[in-house]
Parts: sequence; C-alpha cells; structure tokens
Amino acid sequence: MLDWFYITDLLGVAVFAVSGTLLAFRKHMDGFGVVVLASLTAIGGGTTRDLILDAPVFWLHDATYFVVILSAAMLTIGWLRFRAYIPVNRLLLADALGIAFFTVLGAEKALNSGVSGFTAIILGTMTAVFGGMLRDVVAREVPLVLKSELYATTCIAGATAFVLLYPYSDALAMIVALVITFTLRMGALRYHWSLPVFNEQQDKH
Amino acid sequence: MLDWFYITDLLGVAVFAVSGTLLAFRKHMDGFGVVVLASLTAIGGGTTRDLILDAPVFWLHDATYFVVILSAAMLTIGWLRFRAYIPVNRLLLADALGIAFFTVLGAEKALNSGVSGFTAIILGTMTAVFGGMLRDVVAREVPLVLKSELYATTCIAGATAFVLLYPYSDALAMIVALVITFTLRMGALRYHWSLPVFNEQQDKH
Amino acid sequence: MLDWFYITDLLGVAVFAVSGTLLAFRKHMDGFGVVVLASLTAIGGGTTRDLILDAPVFWLHDATYFVVILSAAMLTIGWLRFRAYIPVNRLLLADALGIAFFTVLGAEKALNSGVSGFTAIILGTMTAVFGGMLRDVVAREVPLVLKSELYATTCIAGATAFVLLYPYSDALAMIVALVITFTLRMGALRYHWSLPVFNEQQDKH
Repeated sequence: MLDWFYITDLLGVAVFAVSGTLLAFRKHMDGFGVVVLASLTAIGGGTTRDLILDAPVFWLHDATYFVVILSAAMLTIGWLRFRAYIPVNRLLLADALGIAFFTVLGAEKALNSGVSGFTAIILGTMTAVFGGMLRDVVAREVPLVLKSELYATTCIAGATAFVLLYPYSDALAMIVALVITFTLRMGALRYHWSLPVFNEQQDKH
Repeated sequence: MLDWFYITDLLGVAVFAVSGTLLAFRKHMDGFGVVVLASLTAIGGGTTRDLILDAPVFWLHDATYFVVILSAAMLTIGWLRFRAYIPVNRLLLADALGIAFFTVLGAEKALNSGVSGFTAIILGTMTAVFGGMLRDVVAREVPLVLKSELYATTCIAGATAFVLLYPYSDALAMIVALVITFTLRMGALRYHWSLPVFNEQQDKH
Repeated sequence: MLDWFYITDLLGVAVFAVSGTLLAFRKHMDGFGVVVLASLTAIGGGTTRDLILDAPVFWLHDATYFVVILSAAMLTIGWLRFRAYIPVNRLLLADALGIAFFTVLGAEKALNSGVSGFTAIILGTMTAVFGGMLRDVVAREVPLVLKSELYATTCIAGATAFVLLYPYSDALAMIVALVITFTLRMGALRYHWSLPVFNEQQDKH
C-alpha cells in the first residue's frame, strides 16, 4: 500500500510543477525562474507539513522528486513552445488533481505521526493549499485559495472522509477521499458552487 | 502562572483571528478563504517561533486553538452580516492587544527554551509581527509592520521589559510588558509618534 | 578553515542587510520596519535551510549576526541621509557578493549534514535566493530571482562547482565557487546574458 501513497505523492508533485510552469509562462518569466516557481508550487505544501510535524522533509533524501519536477517543467515548456497557448481547462483540471493527491497524502502522513484526526484534517488541507498559495504570492497573484469557489472547503471534505475511513481500510480511504476532493472541486468550477460567508449585498460596499 | 500564559495565548489567537476575518471582509473574500486568512494571522507568528526554537508546534496537539479561531471568525462574520461595517478603531485596538499578548508569550517561550535575553527579544517581536505580516502579504496589502508608526518598536520595548523583569517575577514581567506594548502602540496610533530613520525631505525623492 | 566559512557567512549577512535597507529606503519605509526588512533579507535564506536540514537555526545562539545586521543597516542609513541616493551598481554588486557567499555556505552546511550532492546544490541555491525572495515579496516587488538574468542559474553553477571540488579541498572549492557565482552574476548583469526558456515571440502574447 505504501507504494500507492508514494506514487500519489509523485503525481501531485508533477501536476503542481505543471501548474507553476504555466503561471510562469503567463507572467513572462524566463531562465531558471520558471523552475524555481514550479518547485515552490510542487514541494511548498509538503515541506511546510513536514516542518510542522517535525518529520524529515520528504525530498531531503530522495532526488526523485526533483527529477519529476524538472521533467514536468520541461515537458510543459516544450508543449508551450510548440503550441504557445495555455489550456485554462487543463490547468484547472491539473490543479484539482493536485489538491486531491496532496490532501490524501497530507492527512495520511499526519495521522501516522500520531496527531488527532482533527489536526490531520488541518494538515491535509494545508499540504494541498500551501504550495499553490506560495506560487500565487511569489508571482503576485491573488491566491486561488482565498478567492476561489470552495477551494479550501473541498480539501477539508476530502481530508475528513480520509480520516473517518482510514481506521477501516487505507485503500478505501484513499480512493474515496481522492474522488470526493476531485469531484467537489470540478463541480465547484463547473457549476460555480459557492459558500457565501458575507451577504452579497454587503460585498458590494 | 502557566494558566495565565495559556489564557494570554488564546486571547492573542482570538484577537488576531478577528483581524484576519476583518481584512478578508474588506477584500471581498468568501467561503473558507476567510477562515484560512484568520488562521494564518492567528497562528503564523507562533508557528514560526516554534519552528525556529525546534519546539513542538503549539497547536499540533491542542485543538483548542482552532475552536477559538473558528469561534472568533464566526462571531466576527455574524457581526459583519448584521452591521456590515468595520469599526477601524476597534480593529486597530484588537491588533494592539494581539501584539501585546504575543510579544509576552513569544519572549517567555524563548527564555524558557534557553536562548539568551537578546534572542528572546527578537523571538518575542517575531511572534507578534509575523502573523500580521503573513496576513498582509497573502492578502496583498503593504505589511503594517513595514509602514506603521513604531509597530515593531513597541514589541521590542515590551519584550525588553519582559526579559529584564522575568528573573524577579514572571507575573510582574507579564503585566508590565503587556501594558508597555499596548500603551506604546495605542499612543503611536493616537498621537502619530514616529521614529524617523530617513530624512523626510529625502523620502520625497 | 571553519573560520573562513564563518567570516563568509557574516559577510553575506552584512551584504544582504545592506540590500534590504536600500529597498526599504526606495519604498519610503521608516522606523524599525527598515531593520525588519534588512533582517528578513539577511537571515531568511539560512533560516529556511536550517529548518529543512533540521539543524539548529544558525543565529539562535549567536547574537553576532544581529550586531552585524544592525551595524550594516545603520551605516547604510547614515550614508543615505548624507548622500540621499542609491547607487544601483553598488546595490547589484552587493547582491552578487551576497549570493556568492550564501551559495557556498548553504552547499557546505548541507554536505556536512549528510545529504547527497544533488540536494546540496538545491540547498545552496535556496540559501542564496530565499532571503532576497522574502525581501521582494514582503516589499511587494517582483522577486529578482523570477525575472532576472540567470539569477538562480549562477547559484546552481557555483553550488555544483563547490560540491564537485569539496572532496578534494574545501579551500579550493570555496574559492572557485565564490568566483564562479560572482563572475557569472556580474557577467549576466553587464552583458545581459539570458537563458531563454520560452520563445521571445511567444512572450509577447
């Protein structure tokens, strides 16, 4: 089972490296700045999680992650040089896959380090949203997590499902949490679901 | 005595959660983004302090902090839905209380982990200003700490008083440091005290 | 030999404190905000490196670093009050020296903590670029590392040279890496070397 978590982690890293590279392209960055932004996006969330859990940072003794980041960034660059446009739908799809993978991974790693289920939900969500938040802050965009429909909420829902099902079956927990996070995020994007906190009328002040 | 430090910590967290929620309202955020910003503000400073001290992160095994953050955010949201305006004076008062609480907490935790008095002053100040700095950076505001009258200076003064008095009495150190930090901050706001570093004339270049 | 690494570290800290102070001047900051920005720039990269390596944060038990930061900031402030202009060439020279010092230091500390040569290159680069990235993000500038000619690339080249030569002679590795990083950076600035990743034509879209 461990292998599946590792593969999920690598997939999440690849997908977020793609999203960092796409933003770098849109921002007219060049040189190795592109790789810096791709790396920040891909490993920012997991690094923050590991620091807080006082666990060894996941990429410190495993160069595979950077091979994946460089490959994903270079394939994306090649595609952009050839096609020269960004498929927004694909970017949001990649991002939705990325947060699903990272929510599961973060919650699993937190549970295994012995924190409570409640804290595991917070750390799963943090793993999923921090990489993208760093990407947006460094590239001077409004962070997606702060403005987007149900962004953090979908991670909280997925992480909660994972934490509740994990005692029964880790495989089931992983699959259900992936499906919930990904489906909720795609649904929120397609049907513009939202979670109103402030009255719309007041928002216009 | 420990209880008083714990209560001070929770009060600081509540007050900064309110300030994060108020900024989220002003920035027209919605959904769980509000809670994300409130949490970043409330636990950002203490988390950074604990990581640097290599101490267990304070909220990792105590869910009380998130109960406090969620309650403070929801009460603030309720108030805003009802009243729909932000009392700027109250916000600055909350922020002044918050930095007073966190300066004391940060300096105390640093001293108890065995660093020098000088480093404890730096970590007390860092605890107080980092949460608000994260809040402002993520919400794309000019950080208050970088532009505001005597913001960091009041924390340094409070932390210095705490470090000097702590060997004699922790209760006295706590009270004096709280009063100094809060009073200096409110005085700086009311009377526009400032600490000129560059000549005003040159600032206009 | 250890002494030379310590002196290199202090020189890097001084030089980055100067660059933080100069940016604070250009942004019309005042009071202790200047010192906060200078400190962030000077210790941000090394602090991130130490947290990731799970090593004691380098300034936690050595107040020398803050003496150096305060002295560098005050000398810079004195110079600016007297002259009131920023010599851009000197600023870029200071920054180039800073990244050369920090690349070497970061790679050395990483190698000594037992990570692979590949990871040491990443951590050397991270040490060199993170302080300046924090400085720019907090002061709301486009980070130099993301837009500047070969900025991260020069650090990667210097760190690679250091890692390859370190098994033979630490003195030689240090000198060669310093010269490579500094020379490449100054050359990139003077002759506008660049590493095109996206087609120029496409950049204009």
